[in-house]
Amino acid sequence: MNSITMKLNADTYIKLALQEDITSEDVSTNSVMREEVMGRVDLLAKSDGIVAGLFVFERTFTLLDEKTQCEFTVKDGDFVEAGQKIGQVTGDIRVLLSGERVALNYLQRMSGIATYTRSIVNLLTGSKTTLLDTRKTTPNNRIFEKYAVTVGGGKNHRYNLSDGVLLKDNHIGAAGSITKAIAMAKEYAPFVRKVEIETESLDQVREAVEAGADIIMLDNMTYDTMKEAIAIIDGRAQTECSGNVTLENVADLADLGVDFISSGALTHSAPILDLSLKNLHPLSADEK
Amino acid sequence: MNSITMKLNADTYIKLALQEDITSEDVSTNSVMREEVMGRVDLLAKSDGIVAGLFVFERTFTLLDEKTQCEFTVKDGDFVEAGQKIGQVTGDIRVLLSGERVALNYLQRMSGIATYTRSIVNLLTGSKTTLLDTRKTTPNNRIFEKYAVTVGGGKNHRYNLSDGVLLKDNHIGAAGSITKAIAMAKEYAPFVRKVEIETESLDQVREAVEAGADIIMLDNMTYDTMKEAIAIIDGRAQTECSGNVTLENVADLADLGVDFISSGALTHSAPILDLSLKNLHPLSADEK
Amino acid sequence: MNSITMKLNADTYIKLALQEDITSEDVSTNSVMREEVMGRVDLLAKSDGIVAGLFVFERTFTLLDEKTQCEFTVKDGDFVEAGQKIGQVTGDIRVLLSGERVALNYLQRMSGIATYTRSIVNLLTGSKTTLLDTRKTTPNNRIFEKYAVTVGGGKNHRYNLSDGVLLKDNHIGAAGSITKAIAMAKEYAPFVRKVEIETESLDQVREAVEAGADIIMLDNMTYDTMKEAIAIIDGRAQTECSGNVTLENVADLADLGVDFISSGALTHSAPILDLSLKNLHPLSADEK
Amino acid sequence: MNSITMKLNADTYIKLALQEDITSEDVSTNSVMREEVMGRVDLLAKSDGIVAGLFVFERTFTLLDEKTQCEFTVKDGDFVEAGQKIGQVTGDIRVLLSGERVALNYLQRMSGIATYTRSIVNLLTGSKTTLLDTRKTTPNNRIFEKYAVTVGGGKNHRYNLSDGVLLKDNHIGAAGSITKAIAMAKEYAPFVRKVEIETESLDQVREAVEAGADIIMLDNMTYDTMKEAIAIIDGRAQTECSGNVTLENVADLADLGVDFISSGALTHSAPILDLSLKNLHPLSADEK
Amino acid sequence: MNSITMKLNADTYIKLALQEDITSEDVSTNSVMREEVMGRVDLLAKSDGIVAGLFVFERTFTLLDEKTQCEFTVKDGDFVEAGQKIGQVTGDIRVLLSGERVALNYLQRMSGIATYTRSIVNLLTGSKTTLLDTRKTTPNNRIFEKYAVTVGGGKNHRYNLSDGVLLKDNHIGAAGSITKAIAMAKEYAPFVRKVEIETESLDQVREAVEAGADIIMLDNMTYDTMKEAIAIIDGRAQTECSGNVTLENVADLADLGVDFISSGALTHSAPILDLSLKNLHPLSADEK
Amino acid sequence: MNSITMKLNADTYIKLALQEDITSEDVSTNSVMREEVMGRVDLLAKSDGIVAGLFVFERTFTLLDEKTQCEFTVKDGDFVEAGQKIGQVTGDIRVLLSGERVALNYLQRMSGIATYTRSIVNLLTGSKTTLLDTRKTTPNNRIFEKYAVTVGGGKNHRYNLSDGVLLKDNHIGAAGSITKAIAMAKEYAPFVRKVEIETESLDQVREAVEAGADIIMLDNMTYDTMKEAIAIIDGRAQTECSGNVTLENVADLADLGVDFISSGALTHSAPILDLSLKNLHPLSADEK
Repeated sequence: MNSITMKLNADTYIKLALQEDITSEDVSTNSVMREEVMGRVDLLAKSDGIVAGLFVFERTFTLLDEKTQCEFTVKDGDFVEAGQKIGQVTGDIRVLLSGERVALNYLQRMSGIATYTRSIVNLLTGSKTTLLDTRKTTPNNRIFEKYAVTVGGGKNHRYNLSDGVLLKDNHIGAAGSITKAIAMAKEYAPFVRKVEIETESLDQVREAVEAGADIIMLDNMTYDTMKEAIAIIDGRAQTECSGNVTLENVADLADLGVDFISSGALTHSAPILDLSLKNLHPLSADEK
Repeated sequence: MNSITMKLNADTYIKLALQEDITSEDVSTNSVMREEVMGRVDLLAKSDGIVAGLFVFERTFTLLDEKTQCEFTVKDGDFVEAGQKIGQVTGDIRVLLSGERVALNYLQRMSGIATYTRSIVNLLTGSKTTLLDTRKTTPNNRIFEKYAVTVGGGKNHRYNLSDGVLLKDNHIGAAGSITKAIAMAKEYAPFVRKVEIETESLDQVREAVEAGADIIMLDNMTYDTMKEAIAIIDGRAQTECSGNVTLENVADLADLGVDFISSGALTHSAPILDLSLKNLHPLSADEK
Repeated sequence: MNSITMKLNADTYIKLALQEDITSEDVSTNSVMREEVMGRVDLLAKSDGIVAGLFVFERTFTLLDEKTQCEFTVKDGDFVEAGQKIGQVTGDIRVLLSGERVALNYLQRMSGIATYTRSIVNLLTGSKTTLLDTRKTTPNNRIFEKYAVTVGGGKNHRYNLSDGVLLKDNHIGAAGSITKAIAMAKEYAPFVRKVEIETESLDQVREAVEAGADIIMLDNMTYDTMKEAIAIIDGRAQTECSGNVTLENVADLADLGVDFISSGALTHSAPILDLSLKNLHPLSADEK
Repeated sequence: MNSITMKLNADTYIKLALQEDITSEDVSTNSVMREEVMGRVDLLAKSDGIVAGLFVFERTFTLLDEKTQCEFTVKDGDFVEAGQKIGQVTGDIRVLLSGERVALNYLQRMSGIATYTRSIVNLLTGSKTTLLDTRKTTPNNRIFEKYAVTVGGGKNHRYNLSDGVLLKDNHIGAAGSITKAIAMAKEYAPFVRKVEIETESLDQVREAVEAGADIIMLDNMTYDTMKEAIAIIDGRAQTECSGNVTLENVADLADLGVDFISSGALTHSAPILDLSLKNLHPLSADEK
Repeated sequence: MNSITMKLNADTYIKLALQEDITSEDVSTNSVMREEVMGRVDLLAKSDGIVAGLFVFERTFTLLDEKTQCEFTVKDGDFVEAGQKIGQVTGDIRVLLSGERVALNYLQRMSGIATYTRSIVNLLTGSKTTLLDTRKTTPNNRIFEKYAVTVGGGKNHRYNLSDGVLLKDNHIGAAGSITKAIAMAKEYAPFVRKVEIETESLDQVREAVEAGADIIMLDNMTYDTMKEAIAIIDGRAQTECSGNVTLENVADLADLGVDFISSGALTHSAPILDLSLKNLHPLSADEK
Repeated sequence: MNSITMKLNADTYIKLALQEDITSEDVSTNSVMREEVMGRVDLLAKSDGIVAGLFVFERTFTLLDEKTQCEFTVKDGDFVEAGQKIGQVTGDIRVLLSGERVALNYLQRMSGIATYTRSIVNLLTGSKTTLLDTRKTTPNNRIFEKYAVTVGGGKNHRYNLSDGVLLKDNHIGAAGSITKAIAMAKEYAPFVRKVEIETESLDQVREAVEAGADIIMLDNMTYDTMKEAIAIIDGRAQTECSGNVTLENVADLADLGVDFISSGALTHSAPILDLSLKNLHPLSADEK
């Protein structure tokens, strides 16, 4: 998530989130702190996991006051342990207090996703199978959540409805057949798009291969049917297995030799990673 | 969440979420459907839980096309069972396809929060203790998530930093003492605000009561210390217990007789409730 | 109005006001000044009063060009005299000319409100009564006008409909009774809200006290009825007297011992304080 | 202020004003009214004056709920008397309650401006002099305030810095002379602009006429000097007298035969016209 | 360009364009028409060409007033002749006048692009070569211009930098080699992206094929070199010829058997198609 | 186009254009460049013409990263030759790559307009006739295109519908006559507006002069009729000839002695000036 992405795309959401939390002013902070006092606060991990989103955390504070400084002892993707100090924020104490919640809300959520993703990815080690996310992201958080998946070692499926073609049963029904749906997509969509199609039977798989699908999704098939499907496809298209991926069944799926496994739970149901800001104090003479 | 709230506040977020998912067009749908075809799709529960956010689900479709019609057989707060059909959406099939993901992303998340909240609230039945949410919400989803908490039977703590005063350790440190912090807040904040203060020891509890706090948060105290604190306060202020509330310990906390228990997990770590749109079909002559 | 409030909330309005005044370009200035020339202009008071909004005045110029520098010899809340130089602005003369009107429009209006507020507050000196503003502010200027009231020595009532509960006759009618209205608000509203209710008779006052209202507004009562009402309440709720507060009757109202007096005129009918920018000149060698 | 102006320009401000007043929800109303109940409320004048802004008042409600209906017995520009019922609003009572304050804030302010403007215009009756407003409007209210001036019988000066050329002393200084400033403006500005210039002496007046100014502003001149200036100009340019126009001196100014008098006070210091919504009640069977 | 695309994406631009043209009000129209008068105006072609953007034209008027009605006798993609009446607009005459310029600015530009595209496409008839657009579109008009290309018979290349991978010389330089650049893109980019790479020599072509490029752009090559390149690629990747496509050389390029030819001129240099609104008249009794 | 205009008006469009091109991230660049590398690229002219928009080009890059530096060897209005290096951009290579297309899209279009304008202006040399643009600009590009016309030596007609009065046949029809239309405009429009009216016959010309039109447009008249019209007007109003101005007939039009000629083609049909960024390279030790 480089600085251009932050400026053009992420900033809009972060600023909106700050305005969601401060519609007129931070009454508590402004009650007790009428003037700028420089201070520092520690960023601590409160449980074990993978950290993701440090730049978003930092940006939340610098959008409030560009003079705020964040220093981190870890970087996105690193494993952190409960109790570990992983960074510190230095600036106007009012900024530290007013930005704390939004900054942590982002960082905890993104780190939770990275942590959960990593746990699945670890089970795929040694296989040829790649873990993918989906569009089942929290509204207005996709850019952050998809980034967190990559930090956890997963890969991104299409970003949204505009940048990828995925023909599901309803699209096939509307077109009349798999063959027709693929032909229509190749005719209509920008030629830089791969065409992915969802299949539910071996007959559909055969038709999809013949019709020239770039990617074939195996939907709701048994293990044995998927095995047969992959044999039929035989490398003529990429294969994706979707739905109900769990810590329990993921290794089996990898054994199938499927190219991709996609999981909505990465983004819609990962619990947060617990993190907190502690030890806020005015800067001592030494620290200045 | 009445229609005014939807128009003034929620619509902005829902439209932004739709634009996040469709930056130019829905390529897949537009490939295979070049004209309007009226159709219908069923909304099904895929697991047991409490549904929340039906109006947001509906609004997602009507923002795309105001002629889209949603009919529900349940209402927010109802218990739904896996496999149950809970509604249907009728409209231009292209609208049904293009709006599906965003509509479900909202509904699944809100229903997940309501479901998890209800499970905690059930454990408090018969006690005098009320369950509260926090500001640990997903960025740019607060209005939806706080509503989902109330659907699940919880109550809302302050909405944001502008509409409630909560003096934490750092505010107290900045003011000099609990007494001074409360005095400064009463002096500065609009007089319609209650003043809540965080305490970590019985001495602080005593000082807070004397200083006229409206609400006293008992933070990180042992069960016995909380018990003593509540005795000291003796109804002169409302009491709130915060942090690490779990399905396991919540009944014990209620036994204390504390007025409020607040839990960040309600909004930051509830898994979604699985829901889906199935059986999309063009309207038959009978259905028109 | 600290820098966070400015960045998150006030800037949006100030920028919009600048765009209201410059929809394509400042034709007059650009006609005669094709290049940057550094200059300075004096900020003068043209009548006596209380100044408020210097930071907003400054921000108007720095939003146009962050290098613009404002120096003030007074601060918000100070009394200024007609003819007094109270500051100077240094920067690109085109910025000084293009920003002048918007900067003054804000400063004059805010100072007018502070001046009028101070004149009422002075009449309350020695009493226990506090002067409050209302929501009768100029659209899209509330954050500025409520701040100006505090600079003049008044206090803020609720900021808007979302952050305070005030049950008026129509709400009471909808609920069925004062008792029911208060119960419904305590049930529905976030628990950090105080509940205020409007009363028009002594019976209503008694009912409101019994129902546990936090604040009781005495509306359209005669002096003697208010006196009796305050005796009935006897400290069990805070009291607010609303409506038609004038320089003439305010001292009498204070004598009643009412806690708060609220006045819409503070924000809707205060005349501006006359201020102007004079003596614009290119920076001399000495001034650079 | 036709419907196009409302849609393209005014709506943005009105919606922003509603969001300023309702950042999450109207807690009071939503506490006591959980469902739609149709009702009606009367719009009453509480003092004498000229009404202006009825369409803005109506739009505030229809932006909340397009089904809201406003009926007026007067139209913009009509004289209303204290106590007179001038209209009624019918709709969801929650909409009536939530929109009331913003709708009145606009209508009271605009009517106040129209009322004050009319009082000055009346003093000019029979003269050839036209009353003008200025850019001394409340930030983000210009479109409403300038309209209100026309309702009161005044005329609008330029709308903003982009659509009119007015060369003040500082512009003249930058150009080098009145002659040069006018030449530069005629060279630079779109040719559809008239060029107005500010003069402070009879020499400047002579130079301005020679240089081809379309409009000459007589600034801070004595009555006799203005008289002489007008004689010098002798119809070769339009004339405008600016500054410190009062109810007392306006007739004298008109006697001078000046074409235009401009007054900032019309928009920056007119007190509001007192109006209110009363007698809210659920629709009876008869009224439906 | 279906209604969803219009609502979510195009409307924002069309409304902004209307606000660009009407910053306060349409002074001319409002001067002479104070009330709604229903009228009708004809849409005429003034030169021969292909029409594109009728829905955008219509939307411009309905955004001003949803009651405006457009009827067309042609549809997007149809050939129109100079002098032909191709539609009519019925509505409030003020809407017809105020929206005319923006509606025509869109329609003329889009039709100009479609017309020019069609002239090139016609030269490719019978060949296997497809004509593509580029990202050389007018800022904030891409959605309209790319649609116009498809109406003219061309196809769209990637929509923007986010939805397609095209590795140019500078990307290759940064990666170190063609092989490395392709590997990095396959590693980094969402797996639904095809990877296109720019080549300037036959050695680069060979390396690109080996590295698994999906699409190979032949940049600045002579006719003979391109011929050889296509032979080398031999169907293992799609081929694109870019740059300086003209009416003169396009047939030769097609003879090469290249899959795609892309041309920036389609969108950056096509002259408009002349269209106008004529015969505005109030609705007669017959027409109502 | 000074810095105030850029900040208040142009930035909004430029940022929107960048977001149009980067909806999530620049996938190609981010694939191969994971870290900041400082580099430089040359700006080259690829054909002869007049350059316009260098500040817009620069702003595109500094909006992405304010540390980007642009140096130009020419300035707006200068003639450039094919092959000439006219500037260089230094900064993070990712910024140079991600901003390139939008920066060039602006610069090429603006320079194309300036170049075409200059070619017409050259033909008017020695005459008293001034070349004007129209409102036939590309939607959401008016501020850039009208500036480009002035760089090419043309002048701007009114900016939009709000800042100029131009009464066309339809306005005249609505008013009843030319005389009435002019009277209504003088009555309604801000007094700083000149009133322009369109005429199609000598009778209309006579009526327009009598009615006090400031500017008279001669629409669709033959050469001889225009000649007679100008004689009739005889300096009592300014004259404008509109429509179908070409390189071929412009000199003849100038011979007529008309004050202004306006041409829509300047902005709607000028081909771009070909420019490109070449020789991107990481900064060498010498260049740093």
